[in-house]
Amino acid sequence: MSEAGGADSAQLRDGSIELLERVRQLRPHVHVLTNPVAMTRSADALCALGARPSMTVEPRQIAEFVRAAGALVVNLGMLDDARERAILRAVEAARRFGRPWLLDPVKVEVSGHRRSFAERLLDAGPAVIRLNAAEFAALGGGDPPAFAAHRGIVVTLTGAVDVIADGSRSAQIANGSPLLERLTATGCTLSALLGAFLAVTSDAFAAATAAVLTFDVAAECAAEQADGPGTLAARLVDALYRLDGRTLEARARLS
Amino acid sequence: MSEAGGADSAQLRDGSIELLERVRQLRPHVHVLTNPVAMTRSADALCALGARPSMTVEPRQIAEFVRAAGALVVNLGMLDDARERAILRAVEAARRFGRPWLLDPVKVEVSGHRRSFAERLLDAGPAVIRLNAAEFAALGGGDPPAFAAHRGIVVTLTGAVDVIADGSRSAQIANGSPLLERLTATGCTLSALLGAFLAVTSDAFAAATAAVLTFDVAAECAAEQADGPGTLAARLVDALYRLDGRTLEARARLS
Amino acid sequence: MSEAGGADSAQLRDGSIELLERVRQLRPHVHVLTNPVAMTRSADALCALGARPSMTVEPRQIAEFVRAAGALVVNLGMLDDARERAILRAVEAARRFGRPWLLDPVKVEVSGHRRSFAERLLDAGPAVIRLNAAEFAALGGGDPPAFAAHRGIVVTLTGAVDVIADGSRSAQIANGSPLLERLTATGCTLSALLGAFLAVTSDAFAAATAAVLTFDVAAECAAEQADGPGTLAARLVDALYRLDGRTLEARARLS
Repeated sequence: MSEAGGADSAQLRDGSIELLERVRQLRPHVHVLTNPVAMTRSADALCALGARPSMTVEPRQIAEFVRAAGALVVNLGMLDDARERAILRAVEAARRFGRPWLLDPVKVEVSGHRRSFAERLLDAGPAVIRLNAAEFAALGGGDPPAFAAHRGIVVTLTGAVDVIADGSRSAQIANGSPLLERLTATGCTLSALLGAFLAVTSDAFAAATAAVLTFDVAAECAAEQADGPGTLAARLVDALYRLDGRTLEARARLS
Repeated sequence: MSEAGGADSAQLRDGSIELLERVRQLRPHVHVLTNPVAMTRSADALCALGARPSMTVEPRQIAEFVRAAGALVVNLGMLDDARERAILRAVEAARRFGRPWLLDPVKVEVSGHRRSFAERLLDAGPAVIRLNAAEFAALGGGDPPAFAAHRGIVVTLTGAVDVIADGSRSAQIANGSPLLERLTATGCTLSALLGAFLAVTSDAFAAATAAVLTFDVAAECAAEQADGPGTLAARLVDALYRLDGRTLEARARLS
Repeated sequence: MSEAGGADSAQLRDGSIELLERVRQLRPHVHVLTNPVAMTRSADALCALGARPSMTVEPRQIAEFVRAAGALVVNLGMLDDARERAILRAVEAARRFGRPWLLDPVKVEVSGHRRSFAERLLDAGPAVIRLNAAEFAALGGGDPPAFAAHRGIVVTLTGAVDVIADGSRSAQIANGSPLLERLTATGCTLSALLGAFLAVTSDAFAAATAAVLTFDVAAECAAEQADGPGTLAARLVDALYRLDGRTLEARARLS
């Protein structure tokens, strides 16, 4: 277990720049099963990077969409029976077709039913889990690297400082903007973006780091041009569209 | 039945400023059962004020969300069976846990089924009903104070001039912008915001007045910086985020 | 089969300007059955033009909404059982009340189930089909005028250059912006707008031409003021609100 620092963080940053470039070139298809509040925002963010989102929930169609996609994103916000069934089929299709998938266990700290479902999904082997501190605590998380090692998963714990950890590596990212808290579905949007990076590399730790860095630096740029959360939302999509390696390099606060 | 005027309207205005401040400080959780068109817009507006929205519809989870919230908002736009069942459970939970709730009977003038359901909900004791003139007429409304007194409810009737009435008080608010008509789901968004004010006071008339004044003055500020309904939507969220007591005091057209 | 050109294209352009004016004056009600990602964006676009959208899916209410509307839009994005049932009822109501309707067969190239359903709907007689090249190919389309003549439908095939064809006329529109590709649900939004034009004329070819020209020129104006897809989305709604005949006349690239 070694912390990323010095040369390692420069390497992670450069790898992130390369992965962002790869997303723009390969334009991966990402299937996103998410809550209605986050749908348009998530799809816009993916399109801004050049990725191609699909969001169909209906069980008969879902295996075809997962097969056509490079990665799957599973978000439990506003979970209902139809999406539960869709998620189980989609996760099964992801396993069958070898697609990596991400779990975003939204608000498991409020609902017991949702927490049980999230635990069942954790057992099904997502490549990445993306959540906030309250959700992590509700799932018995304490130390991200320990949880990652025990579960064989990449933990992406977002907050004022974001932590990414797998069983052997960890990184912290201090970019972003406090204004993000005043906008809905920003965590869900980051999870959707992360799917695009999972689709272009088999290193889920690198994908998570690149996605968080991309999202946070874009949010930072956007917040500088925003007058509040409403213009932030529009500027964030613009910033994702315009973000380049030079900006990532200049702004990254990665350790 | 006395009209608010003179000293009364100054008092209502100052009370509204205080309630807005209370929303910002207490950051109430509001559970909003609304139509998909209005979801992101409603959640963004609540977040901009510092409130915390949740929108889960699924019956098994809903009592936990209503219990965690300070108020409940029930919107009948695009009503379907799943939301009907959710609403009945949520209203029952609101009664059990003592949470105030608001009814927004969207487009009851078009659908007979929806009108019947709205009437059933009216009997279940919402603290506030928020609607437009066509919806009010479809529910047999004529004179807002009379309807309010008969039903024991706060009527919030929005239009070019907004009217708020309970059995003993009434107020009129002439702020806002005609450009709001060219944007979708603005009434639904106001209803969602009203939930945040209901969560911080037991005086539903004061809550409704403060919410309408906040929304209308924010819309007025936003319209001055907008080039059309698209930028209005973004600027409205910004304005809700930035709105302060001085602006409310300077702009309020309350009688 | 004659191509529009010379005097014909000037006539089409002037007819489009007149239809846009008619939409603004008559403010038609359009019922739009669409996917959740596209809902708010579609409703905003319709409201910006002055049209009045409704989006209810629930079967018991749908005939009343279709009857109250001047046209129906059927979009298969994120198709699920509830919307399938709603679509079948809505199409039946459209036939009963004599309302024109449009089919947007989103992503039929990915899902076999969806393709079958789209073919069933094609047999039910939509006035217009709006789709992209991949969707058109999946439905056996090759030459738009031939497909239009065979099916008795107006084909609206959108891409870098948009093609509109019925059995005897065709037009090409070269307006728009490449930035539209980086925003989600823009095709769905155009389909929703097209409903407003179908509601104000019995000439579906003229309606489709006017809608595409309106959307493309508005997008072109919006892109000139946008810093990326996020501000494009807001500016597009503004541009639809502000668009006038003079701008359409000056910018139209119609042949």
